[in-house]
Amino acid sequence: MSSTEGKVIKCKAAVAWEAGKPLVIEEVEVAPPQAMEVRLKILFTSLCHTDVYFWEAKGQTPLFPRIFGHEAAGIVESVGEGVTELKPGDHVLPVFTGECKECRHCKSEESNMCDLLRINTERGVMLSDGKSRFSINGKPIYHFVGTSTFSEYTVVHVGCVAKINPEAPLDKVCVLSCGISTGLGATLNVAKPPKGSTVAIFGLGAVGLAAAEGARIAGASRIIGIDLNPKRFEEAKKFGVTEFVNPKDHDKPVQQVIAEMTDGGVDRSVECTGNFNAMISAFECVHDGWGVAVLVGVPSKDDSFKTHPMNVLNERTLKGTFFGNFKPRTDLPSVVERYMKKELELEKFITHEVTFSEINNAFDLMLSGASLRCIIRMEG
Amino acid sequence: MSSTEGKVIKCKAAVAWEAGKPLVIEEVEVAPPQAMEVRLKILFTSLCHTDVYFWEAKGQTPLFPRIFGHEAAGIVESVGEGVTELKPGDHVLPVFTGECKECRHCKSEESNMCDLLRINTERGVMLSDGKSRFSINGKPIYHFVGTSTFSEYTVVHVGCVAKINPEAPLDKVCVLSCGISTGLGATLNVAKPPKGSTVAIFGLGAVGLAAAEGARIAGASRIIGIDLNPKRFEEAKKFGVTEFVNPKDHDKPVQQVIAEMTDGGVDRSVECTGNFNAMISAFECVHDGWGVAVLVGVPSKDDSFKTHPMNVLNERTLKGTFFGNFKPRTDLPSVVERYMKKELELEKFITHEVTFSEINNAFDLMLSGASLRCIIRMEG
Ligand SMILES: [Zn+2]
Ligand SMILES: [Zn+2]
Repeated sequence: MSSTEGKVIKCKAAVAWEAGKPLVIEEVEVAPPQAMEVRLKILFTSLCHTDVYFWEAKGQTPLFPRIFGHEAAGIVESVGEGVTELKPGDHVLPVFTGECKECRHCKSEESNMCDLLRINTERGVMLSDGKSRFSINGKPIYHFVGTSTFSEYTVVHVGCVAKINPEAPLDKVCVLSCGISTGLGATLNVAKPPKGSTVAIFGLGAVGLAAAEGARIAGASRIIGIDLNPKRFEEAKKFGVTEFVNPKDHDKPVQQVIAEMTDGGVDRSVECTGNFNAMISAFECVHDGWGVAVLVGVPSKDDSFKTHPMNVLNERTLKGTFFGNFKPRTDLPSVVERYMKKELELEKFITHEVTFSEINNAFDLMLSGASLRCIIRMEG
Repeated sequence: MSSTEGKVIKCKAAVAWEAGKPLVIEEVEVAPPQAMEVRLKILFTSLCHTDVYFWEAKGQTPLFPRIFGHEAAGIVESVGEGVTELKPGDHVLPVFTGECKECRHCKSEESNMCDLLRINTERGVMLSDGKSRFSINGKPIYHFVGTSTFSEYTVVHVGCVAKINPEAPLDKVCVLSCGISTGLGATLNVAKPPKGSTVAIFGLGAVGLAAAEGARIAGASRIIGIDLNPKRFEEAKKFGVTEFVNPKDHDKPVQQVIAEMTDGGVDRSVECTGNFNAMISAFECVHDGWGVAVLVGVPSKDDSFKTHPMNVLNERTLKGTFFGNFKPRTDLPSVVERYMKKELELEKFITHEVTFSEINNAFDLMLSGASLRCIIRMEG
């Protein structure tokens, strides 16, 4: 039994007091976990675009003060009533979306969109009692997507915690709790490119490169990267991308360029930008008869996906995915094992590292496009 | 060896001299099959909407005089050079789309859209020499989709002929060479509803009812039929449809009505009308997480399939199919076997029968909506 079990923990957290303003490291009080909750000691967290998007809070109902952070790795400090699958000392990844194991989605082999614990970006409190577990001088600080990993300790629903191999280096596998798994799973679980096939990846940020990494692991023979930024290509080669197309270099639609490069279209495409035109191109660039396009990127504005129905009728498939179709608790441990077996390479995603006190630098690196993933080391 | 082998055959054919005008039974000359062709004696043919659509020729480049017909069953009369898979006397179904067994599509397990023999509605001649095998007093009569089964004898590319069980009654299995297989395969091969699942079928014509029949065979527990014509429901019950929704009876979109009936959406939907709004409804009425929508109906005008990308991202799948994803030569024999084992019921699709001389009545029955399938008996 840890000496802190059942007690409030005072620790450091990076608090966002206002939209778009630098985070401030504060001493916060973290309440003990309630029923079906666990309290985690976070050792490493990384920054993902979703944190930045909700921190900027443009066009959103702002929810501040708030503790962001959702890509992380840590160790269970204590568990609440009814938690039997985890115990203090377990190595874990907290996840922004959960798996209750009871609902129709959790019981379906095909879905990971748990009814109970599906991502909710608007809720800043715990599910069970509608309250926050964080406070400063008695004033509550809001949670973010049930994880709030920009804190030395956080409280998470047990359904949002994946128990992993204790041998796994937490400063590497922390990136698996969001973006990298999203891209990797989009290819491996949804697009499923056969060995020797051709794959197009739209958007060569961290998620797109993880999708390319999935195609490399699957044995694709050609991986075509599409991005508006020509600087991305050198880096993309490390992830198995063999050819590069910049839509700006062509007068014709990029789907036509790709069709000409591939005798009628690629076997699979994965769209990671969330841009509407890229979504349409990603669908229309797959070969008729067998092509599968997978949409990953979430659009930020209201617009329609449009295509001529004959593109569908000619035996193309359009699929969407959320968190790479991984069920967080059931599937993440095996993704960690892929890394342990050196099948999946995580080091190349990690371009920067900062200490917790330098967390605002991680925001700057992401906003400038300099980093893929910047690890934030919570301790010294 | 048949006495007619290598010779021109004079026989009766129903010739369309002009768009939309009644067919005229004429004596035509049918040339012997060239290399990789077979000449068939047609015993039964039926009428499909596609015949009517190209006979009406609205908004098309008209190609007349022409011999229509593509749903049929017959017996091989003679074979051309190089044909080894078929011999005189074989019982066969001619098909409007083919399977060369050599191209990328034929070699793919997923596609049936043969590069060489894919449906071509604009070509009125044979592939090998660009000539017609039909003539009247030396004047060529155009073919239709490589089959032209409204003739006692016709010449077809060997790749468009499925050899079937000689025990199968040709007056029943003739309907498998187009619409019924299209609907059946859309469900069994593409939507693949799990046992006990819910399925929505848009459009309760012959193709939609065949899709329902597929859902019934697959063991779906609820089959929801959607049609603007309330008269369709009684008939649809015979095909396993358990509930009926008429979009005209509701103020809200039909996808919302279906979602409310099914706790969030059906597991599978199959769209058989070709109407744009029905396509969108069919996609949006499937459950998030695992729903699959299959488009079968071909649109007659130019418009876009539109949906909000979140509908895709929430793990829905959109798939198109052509001829139910059946490879004509490889797969049709096993569909015939499903009928022979009484798993698939064809009798209920056959609502009418006429003699060859009454062929224009079959058009009237279809145009008035009175028939599902009207069999045209070529002999006596
Ligand atoms: Zn669940
Ligand atoms: Zn082929």
